[in-house]
Amino acid sequence: MKIIIVGGVAGGATAAARIRRNDETAEIVLVERGQYISFANCGLPYHISGIIEEREQLLVTSEEAFKERYRVDVRSRTEAIGIDRKARTMRLRNLATGDETDEPYDKLLLSPGAEPVRPKLPGIDSSRIFGLRNIPDLDRIMAHLKEHNPRRAVVIGGGFIGIEVAENLHDKGIFTTLVEGADQILTPLDYGMAAIVHSHMRDKNVELYLNDKVEQFEEKDDHTVVYLGSGRRLQADLVVLAIGVRPETTLARAANLELGSTGGIKVNGHLQTSDPDIYAVGDAIEVTQTISGQQVLIPLAGPANRQGRMAADNIIFGNSKVYRGTQGTSILKAFDLAAATTGLNEKQLNAAGIPFLSCITHSGSHASYYPGAKQISLKLLFTDKGQILGAQAVGADGADKRIDVIATAIHGNLKVEDLADLELAYAPPFGSAKDPINIAGYVATNILNGSHDMIEWKELRASLGAKDPEMQLIDVRTAEEFGFGSIPTARNIDVNHLRERLDELDPNKAVILFCQIGLRGYLAYRILTQHGFTQVRNLSGGYKSYSWAVE
Amino acid sequence: MKIIIVGGVAGGATAAARIRRNDETAEIVLVERGQYISFANCGLPYHISGIIEEREQLLVTSEEAFKERYRVDVRSRTEAIGIDRKARTMRLRNLATGDETDEPYDKLLLSPGAEPVRPKLPGIDSSRIFGLRNIPDLDRIMAHLKEHNPRRAVVIGGGFIGIEVAENLHDKGIFTTLVEGADQILTPLDYGMAAIVHSHMRDKNVELYLNDKVEQFEEKDDHTVVYLGSGRRLQADLVVLAIGVRPETTLARAANLELGSTGGIKVNGHLQTSDPDIYAVGDAIEVTQTISGQQVLIPLAGPANRQGRMAADNIIFGNSKVYRGTQGTSILKAFDLAAATTGLNEKQLNAAGIPFLSCITHSGSHASYYPGAKQISLKLLFTDKGQILGAQAVGADGADKRIDVIATAIHGNLKVEDLADLELAYAPPFGSAKDPINIAGYVATNILNGSHDMIEWKELRASLGAKDPEMQLIDVRTAEEFGFGSIPTARNIDVNHLRERLDELDPNKAVILFCQIGLRGYLAYRILTQHGFTQVRNLSGGYKSYSWAVE
Ligand SMILES: Cc1cc2nc3c(=O)[nH]c(=O)nc-3n(C[C@H](O)[C@H](O)[C@H](O)COP(=O)(O)OP(=O)(O)OC[C@H]3O[C@@H](n4cnc5c(N)ncnc54)[C@H](O)[C@@H]3O)c2cc1C
Ligand SMILES: Cc1cc2nc3c(=O)[nH]c(=O)nc-3n(C[C@H](O)[C@H](O)[C@H](O)COP(=O)(O)OP(=O)(O)OC[C@H]3O[C@@H](n4cnc5c(N)ncnc54)[C@H](O)[C@@H]3O)c2cc1C
Ligand SMILES: CC(C)(COP(=O)(O)OP(=O)(O)OC[C@H]1O[C@@H](n2cnc3c(N)ncnc32)[C@H](O)[C@@H]1OP(=O)(O)O)[C@@H](O)C(=O)NCCC(=O)NCCS
Ligand SMILES: CC(C)(COP(=O)(O)OP(=O)(O)OC[C@H]1O[C@@H](n2cnc3c(N)ncnc32)[C@H](O)[C@@H]1OP(=O)(O)O)[C@@H](O)C(=O)NCCC(=O)NCCS
Repeated sequence: MKIIIVGGVAGGATAAARIRRNDETAEIVLVERGQYISFANCGLPYHISGIIEEREQLLVTSEEAFKERYRVDVRSRTEAIGIDRKARTMRLRNLATGDETDEPYDKLLLSPGAEPVRPKLPGIDSSRIFGLRNIPDLDRIMAHLKEHNPRRAVVIGGGFIGIEVAENLHDKGIFTTLVEGADQILTPLDYGMAAIVHSHMRDKNVELYLNDKVEQFEEKDDHTVVYLGSGRRLQADLVVLAIGVRPETTLARAANLELGSTGGIKVNGHLQTSDPDIYAVGDAIEVTQTISGQQVLIPLAGPANRQGRMAADNIIFGNSKVYRGTQGTSILKAFDLAAATTGLNEKQLNAAGIPFLSCITHSGSHASYYPGAKQISLKLLFTDKGQILGAQAVGADGADKRIDVIATAIHGNLKVEDLADLELAYAPPFGSAKDPINIAGYVATNILNGSHDMIEWKELRASLGAKDPEMQLIDVRTAEEFGFGSIPTARNIDVNHLRERLDELDPNKAVILFCQIGLRGYLAYRILTQHGFTQVRNLSGGYKSYSWAVE
Repeated sequence: MKIIIVGGVAGGATAAARIRRNDETAEIVLVERGQYISFANCGLPYHISGIIEEREQLLVTSEEAFKERYRVDVRSRTEAIGIDRKARTMRLRNLATGDETDEPYDKLLLSPGAEPVRPKLPGIDSSRIFGLRNIPDLDRIMAHLKEHNPRRAVVIGGGFIGIEVAENLHDKGIFTTLVEGADQILTPLDYGMAAIVHSHMRDKNVELYLNDKVEQFEEKDDHTVVYLGSGRRLQADLVVLAIGVRPETTLARAANLELGSTGGIKVNGHLQTSDPDIYAVGDAIEVTQTISGQQVLIPLAGPANRQGRMAADNIIFGNSKVYRGTQGTSILKAFDLAAATTGLNEKQLNAAGIPFLSCITHSGSHASYYPGAKQISLKLLFTDKGQILGAQAVGADGADKRIDVIATAIHGNLKVEDLADLELAYAPPFGSAKDPINIAGYVATNILNGSHDMIEWKELRASLGAKDPEMQLIDVRTAEEFGFGSIPTARNIDVNHLRERLDELDPNKAVILFCQIGLRGYLAYRILTQHGFTQVRNLSGGYKSYSWAVE
């Protein structure tokens, strides 16, 4: 059997290796447009600052080593430019010589990835504007840094790559501005959670412009001017464009393979395109989101690797494996914080028409009495039946662990009640006897069984805006904490004295309770509702979440 | 309703708080023999070295704060000494005054914990021998450290508490010897995994005596002599005894409550003892191990907390909740390493008569090209149907995360195939596109579907001992690696050249392959078995696991 694979990195190289392990006799041709196969796309931003010191560290496997070990016919600097599906041949162009050849195949595997979006804005061809997808892109940025020693950088786009690039430019000592068209960076998170990262990045002295779009660039002698929709003009010695990626489908389109509505290549459960001899994986395909069932683009390395391995099996052993879809688990380091997520967020749930409940908790990454505990903010989204729809975690330690656990729980169809029961590894340096996950499970379960009712910061802000004179907003923290600042119009009744001060409240009017993180507000809730109060709610995530989100 | 709770720490205090949240009107009496409720048992060892600086940090909640917030009638320094089950009264002794009273109850909750085992050895009453269960114990050790400035400590017992105490004494600058009667410390791990910790502790300059038992102590003027079964005599300025704990059942036995064969209090699924008005939780009870179904003692804080909360619900709302048993997830910090485990190990599986397969993998805690990656050694135990029976992880970073994920997978009845498919959060600082968990899932799945066959270090060592001249032991690493040391009698054929050197091997005789961690041995396995070799096996965990275990 002869297999041609297009794309020699995450999906493609993985598939090539697995095909060889599956079958010593297969003839495997690996076609890669660039000079390098198997490089660490995800590591690229970290060479800018020097965190990853050597460029060579990014080359996970060399062409020679890969050929020797896996006996793959690697054709780097070669572009796949056409498919004759009837004849089952692929047209290849050698980019060094310009020569073109037709290569026959039994099966084809496409893993061409996704390309950075590059809008046709005036001035976009300025020599100081860069993208970052591969080693040559990185080389260009590094050369510019070396030659021009830039002092001010502008990064356009607050997604994963934009934030990573901004952090690394900042770490390199360059004053960096991040521009984002939406009202938040990190769209996989909900606003209230992303707001924690906003605040942290500003603390680190990265300038953030949200709700602002680039309209044009102007190349000057020694800098480039970035014009924003708001009228702002930013003078930059270096601009990095990271406003997203789109599936590489030139080849698929030319070959008349079916595309999905998202623009990605359409595949079935076996990762087969509309041509059964052609499989496709990775950033170029659209996948089924496991919870909503909708077709989506999720351009991440984990899924690309797994799909590559699965397609390799289906090619060699017949369609033996079914891809169950992608959940969308991802993580980003933003300076000292990690922001991680799995499943769906509010925006996606609303778009999919899935009703949901949610809660936000803040817990220590490990036992508070053991030094070094950091706060983890955890948001859980779930149905009224307890199905877990998604989770988001932001924190300086252990956010990755909690999201991995919840990702596993979602994979296993566990409910929020199960999160309460999970038996996680506890010793003081690693967690708490009641882990943040257990706590989130408790809080969610309490909401579901009616023993707790919460209000989100957004709704409280709206209520406060409407200036309802009937609403009783009660800060149940200590007088000291109240003194350091509270929500406007709030009155202070320490939860520890609430039982004695019930007569200061009207049980027939709405009461909104809050404390620092939600725990004491919940206790107060339990006290009031057992004393005849009927319209009580506790602020989700407490004053902490509120002040981050509302500023 | 009036509830008396015996034991004011993990299970007891949690239950008291939850009962109050459930019911503002309940009358709650919390009886605690010691001076402190709600202290951090698990933090005690860390005050010895000063990692936890202040003794006060160990007092999670004060009696006053707890009374104020939860309106619980806390009776510290009070011992429960008898139960009149017919009259439904409990006899309490005030330890300050000696006064005894009978306190009526509607429901009783026992959470008396477990007491350190203290064998009746000659000399055991030496003033330099300490145990560590509570604050007074810690105070005694701290006073001894201050007064006598010991230079040599001997810790007896290589369980969690013994190892933690040894580490903290060592960190305090005291030369420390750890004595363990079994051939390994950390019995929740299998020998090959514990061996990694042995080696690490020795590197840290803790002296380890395995397979050696204390027989007697002798108090001298300024030190105590510890006599071991091997004939060794250790001179110690300080001895800490940590050879295990046993359920506190004095009260339960006096009240004729049923005990289990393990010696723990017997409870049903609702955590009710043989008297339906008496519930029991925590270290004092025996629980069902969720995988084997056997009755066991698992004295850990997480289960005690969860049981306390559940018993509180069952007491207030009727028997609404069922405890599903304890899986046995635990973790220990041993200097720079974490050793974590969930489910059953080989010894427990053998004892339970459950047949199993296993694999050991070593992976980076995150992408190798991003600085700071540490090795994680992961052992997976599973049935031939793919059910996960247990896992063990040892490593300097991320071992806790991997065990928590597998603990969740076990809770959700996921199979090893699911571990291969798990979508975990990946960015270079946090993991790999193929996470160590995915890799373990791949390796286990390959064993199950017959595409890979492994041999454990133990069996290989036995084969080598039998000196079978037919066995072909092949080191498939590079010539350079081979030069640095290999397994005796091994020949070297680099996997990259194996295809050209097949004629050096006899396909009709057994071949044992190994590399550094198992990956290249697996590739070699794939090559050989596809070239007519029928008796091939690859060493699980490679040379690394072998040399740790065999030394
Ligand atoms: C800067 C950066 C940081 C990232 N960080 C993360 C992260 O932290 N976590 C994460 O999960 N993901 C991250 N990603 C995304 C991740 O790298 C991709 O999801 C993954 O590489 C996709 O694999 P793929 O095989 O589909 O495509 P790629 O790995 O991009 O490989 C596609 C290859 O195909 C080649 N190709 C395309 N068309 C042709 C053709 N016609 N002929 C020949 N060759 C062709 C391309 O040159 C390319 O090398 C990051 C990506 C970038 C760029
Ligand atoms: C040094 C040390 C380190 C530990 N580290 C960890 C760890 O890292 N991770 C982990 O999961 N677990 C750890 N544990 C175990 C954990 O602390 C226990 O599993 C947990 O505290 C058990 O809770 P419990 O409520 O059953 O008992 P306890 O928390 O021990 O509380 C029982 C209380 O009952 C009181 N009592 C007993 N009998 C009577 C009576 N008749 N009258 C009145 N009072 C009575 C006792 O004085 C005691 O204070 C550690 C324990 C110790 C001692
Ligand atoms: C201190 C102690 C009494 C606290 O017990 P607790 O009140 O059950 O536990 P927490 O303080 O974590 O509070 C958990 C409760 O607050 C709720 N909660 C926590 N965070 C919340 C938030 N952000 N919003 C709303 N509710 C929240 C939880 O739902 C839970 O309530 P529930 O059980 O009614 O569902 C008890 O843990 C203790 O004694 N610990 C020390 C002893 C010990 O555990 N030793 C072993 C380990 S060292
Ligand atoms: C380098 C690359 C080609 C390796 O692909 P790979 O061979 O599939 O992956 P690994 O080297 O991790 O090896 C995994 C294989 O070894 C096996 N293995 C790993 N450890 C093992 C062990 N200790 N014992 C036995 N087998 C082991 C696994 O089972 C798996 O084999 P299988 O798929 O046949 O089951 C590919 O990952 C790549 O190109 N990566 C760089 C690009 C990229 O991923 N970018 C995005 C992220 S930056």
